[in-house]
Amino acid sequence: MDVENRLVLYCEKPLRNKGRFPIPKRCFKLQGHSGSCADFGYLAHIDEAAAGVGRKIRRDATKTTGASWRSKDAGPNRIDRWAMLLSDSDLLGYDLDVEALSPGVQAKLRDKRATYDDCIEVAQKLAWHVYNMRGAPAPPPDIRDYLEQLFGSLGEEETACMICGEPLEFEDFARAVRGKAEIETAHANPRAHNADNVGFAHRICNIAQGPRTLDEFYAWMESVLRRVRRI
Amino acid sequence: MDVENRLVLYCEKPLRNKGRFPIPKRCFKLQGHSGSCADFGYLAHIDEAAAGVGRKIRRDATKTTGASWRSKDAGPNRIDRWAMLLSDSDLLGYDLDVEALSPGVQAKLRDKRATYDDCIEVAQKLAWHVYNMRGAPAPPPDIRDYLEQLFGSLGEEETACMICGEPLEFEDFARAVRGKAEIETAHANPRAHNADNVGFAHRICNIAQGPRTLDEFYAWMESVLRRVRRI
Repeated sequence: MDVENRLVLYCEKPLRNKGRFPIPKRCFKLQGHSGSCADFGYLAHIDEAAAGVGRKIRRDATKTTGASWRSKDAGPNRIDRWAMLLSDSDLLGYDLDVEALSPGVQAKLRDKRATYDDCIEVAQKLAWHVYNMRGAPAPPPDIRDYLEQLFGSLGEEETACMICGEPLEFEDFARAVRGKAEIETAHANPRAHNADNVGFAHRICNIAQGPRTLDEFYAWMESVLRRVRRI
Repeated sequence: MDVENRLVLYCEKPLRNKGRFPIPKRCFKLQGHSGSCADFGYLAHIDEAAAGVGRKIRRDATKTTGASWRSKDAGPNRIDRWAMLLSDSDLLGYDLDVEALSPGVQAKLRDKRATYDDCIEVAQKLAWHVYNMRGAPAPPPDIRDYLEQLFGSLGEEETACMICGEPLEFEDFARAVRGKAEIETAHANPRAHNADNVGFAHRICNIAQGPRTLDEFYAWMESVLRRVRRI
């Protein structure tokens, strides 16, 4: 599934960065594309089909969670993942006081750091996973070509929960239990945010995995079952 | 381990209820005891050895969690478990507006309801589990006799994490990872709070179990491993 040699040539034209952290953003449409430049162009059709899913992908791909910054500027609790590549003193320049957070929250935030490029690739990969879901709308040809060049054919495998392996349904995005969305973005290694490491999972599975890698989680399950079933 | 016929005869003398919910409380020391009456007398020695552990047992045995009541009276987020046996309209008389909480939080709170008697028995059982832990102090003879009458001999089995089965150490009560205590009170069935259903568990195990019963959780693990290991 991993495409070793990504030969996709992007437009690369610089985009205006409307965010607060002045990193260079650029166009991730293909070279010679028509229409305006964009870094999330491959989400255009998902946005039409189910706006919430597109917003979720952008947010999970690019934003941290877990910190209640005591800064009005910071918004409720999310900032760009690439901001967490900055030093504590640089962040203070943005009115974000890392040292005011508990050590636990600081460590979790640093775990969520990622480059702009990795965030874009995560969004691309999540879009690909969406189109592989049961009940997902078919992508328009240009987006299909784009995502297949990046990650391989669509429709050959069904997107399953990354953790329990049960198939996920597109309509699960709209479902919530006790006010919490049923599908979350998950990481095989919770301390790495890149296209090879992300997928979707049931909320309950994602919570169960916790801070462990998937390999660690499965090994833990095996050791638990050996212990409790022996009794 | 389950003692079918609990022949323990309690003092039963009424206690003054200093709490906000006027239920009848009573003395759970043995008939003919010396000293003052109490419902948590069996925690006296744990309180001396490690005050935090005694407080934790009282709190987990008797208090709900999970609701941010918008009432000053309610305190941060805990109220007596027996209060959750009252109707919504009765609770409104205590300035607790259940309907203002999300349906999810309401359901969770109702899951935590328990009678005063069940709460006391949970506290007794947790005290018994503490004394069965590696590294726990030895109880004084009167408390040993009391707990052994209720739940069987101390020292015959080691208290293990109710979920993963690994032995727990008394000193783990004082340990915290990222600001969170390592040992939590756990329930084989998260919707039942009584002595036969409670124990201690690692925080990470308790989170992983989530809203499932232990049986459901182990069955889920088996199905996941069958699925992911087959690939």
